[in-house]
Amino acid sequence: MRVVRTVSELRDALRRARREDSTIGFVPTMGALHAGHEALMEQARRECDVVVLSIFVNPTQFNDPTDLERYPRTEEADVAAAERAGVDLVFAPFAQEMYPRGATIEVRLAGPLVDTLEGAHRGSDHFHGVTTVVAKLFNIVQPDVAYFGQKDAQQVLVVTALVRELNFPVRIQAVQTVREPDGLAMSSRNVHVQGRDRERALALKAGLDSAQATYDGGERDADAVIAASVAAMASYEVDPEYLAIVDRVTLEPLRTVEPGALVVVAAPVGPVRLIDNATIH
Amino acid sequence: MRVVRTVSELRDALRRARREDSTIGFVPTMGALHAGHEALMEQARRECDVVVLSIFVNPTQFNDPTDLERYPRTEEADVAAAERAGVDLVFAPFAQEMYPRGATIEVRLAGPLVDTLEGAHRGSDHFHGVTTVVAKLFNIVQPDVAYFGQKDAQQVLVVTALVRELNFPVRIQAVQTVREPDGLAMSSRNVHVQGRDRERALALKAGLDSAQATYDGGERDADAVIAASVAAMASYEVDPEYLAIVDRVTLEPLRTVEPGALVVVAAPVGPVRLIDNATIH
Repeated sequence: MRVVRTVSELRDALRRARREDSTIGFVPTMGALHAGHEALMEQARRECDVVVLSIFVNPTQFNDPTDLERYPRTEEADVAAAERAGVDLVFAPFAQEMYPRGATIEVRLAGPLVDTLEGAHRGSDHFHGVTTVVAKLFNIVQPDVAYFGQKDAQQVLVVTALVRELNFPVRIQAVQTVREPDGLAMSSRNVHVQGRDRERALALKAGLDSAQATYDGGERDADAVIAASVAAMASYEVDPEYLAIVDRVTLEPLRTVEPGALVVVAAPVGPVRLIDNATIH
Repeated sequence: MRVVRTVSELRDALRRARREDSTIGFVPTMGALHAGHEALMEQARRECDVVVLSIFVNPTQFNDPTDLERYPRTEEADVAAAERAGVDLVFAPFAQEMYPRGATIEVRLAGPLVDTLEGAHRGSDHFHGVTTVVAKLFNIVQPDVAYFGQKDAQQVLVVTALVRELNFPVRIQAVQTVREPDGLAMSSRNVHVQGRDRERALALKAGLDSAQATYDGGERDADAVIAASVAAMASYEVDPEYLAIVDRVTLEPLRTVEPGALVVVAAPVGPVRLIDNATIH
């Protein structure tokens, strides 16, 4: 496995793979790899001839400078995890390589996909930052398939729209959320959830489970389902930033809960902000 | 030569070329092909294994609906010209194929490249429309080299910045402006320049020639050179929208004229707006 820092090194390393018509799988990450990322790398390894992992804490998608500053950086461990997962090539550029002249270009989606939920709470610039860096990474790596975690459900939809609207020749593959044994969704930010907050963090999964249970109990009204979920979270002393039941493609709020509806939740827990989601079945 | 209307037909047609590691040359146009486009196609033919021409009057780069409406459409003649020039594949999509859901994504450069000159007079949305459609076309065609006419000097710089800032694996090749025997730069809009306006249209080239002559006479002050050029244009009864002497890379105005400086001019002539440029040598 090789670790490269520059676009030209990466392109050189991939030149032969492209000539041989190999399938290139790409796992873009911000590092601080956990079992969720491992699932992405493993699926890429199973499905593709060449697997590229990128590690880049993208400054343009952080609305909160403190969040950017304390975002965990664990490159040595990440490289070891990539090696174990059978990654062929790690692209770990410095910010200067990605934005040598600052933020002079932006790829911007419009509409509820980027304006609602995470876009409303972090600002739509968050997703503009995501689509811009993903467009750059797609042009740098030129993958056939790119793997994203379903934990960031809205990001999966945003990246899918990016590919469709700009005609990238890339397939987006969402990979199921990996959870701790007690149900907490894996997240790089979990390292900052300590002590009593670790138990409070279970509120998100409890809210999602409650939505399914309320639905299973026969309730179909979205407001009623949401109210029950918020109450379930309150028992963990957590107040959601949002808890919504939305169309799984458009993210528009649903009045009536139905199979396939997406339940999304965000909440502050101690020093961080966590998100999670589930699909009603 | 084949003419295709959809992205999937185009991709199918190019699949073999890509497997064989052929060099793909791309000439994006809005149709109404003239000798300037022929020069682009011929250079692509000389330099590449496969030549793709696109014909698409991109609505998102027109600030003026009247200009869009009367933009000449001559597809039958264009296809014949492409065939004569040895083009392999013509991509002529309908707007519905390029924007099935409307303008839901935008690729936006920031700064003087898109805000000044054409950007100031047509609005910076003009260049946002250009960068968005070119990004889409690059992802659809995946060329190795893309050919653009130097007549649209600012567009060449904008597209070069697009490639650099989004890391497209494409080389931009500018091709020298082709002129009528009397010096008028070839343009699809020239068909609307009739009668006495045809003679007045020579004002642009006269202004550019005057700048070189004034420089050759020893003048180095940009304002003085510009004043002489505006006077030369006035003798054709044409008043420029702008006539500027700028850095050929950043488009920033120069105070002192030097070799390599770019002289750019735009002027209304009869029912249309014409542009032209030259480099001081």
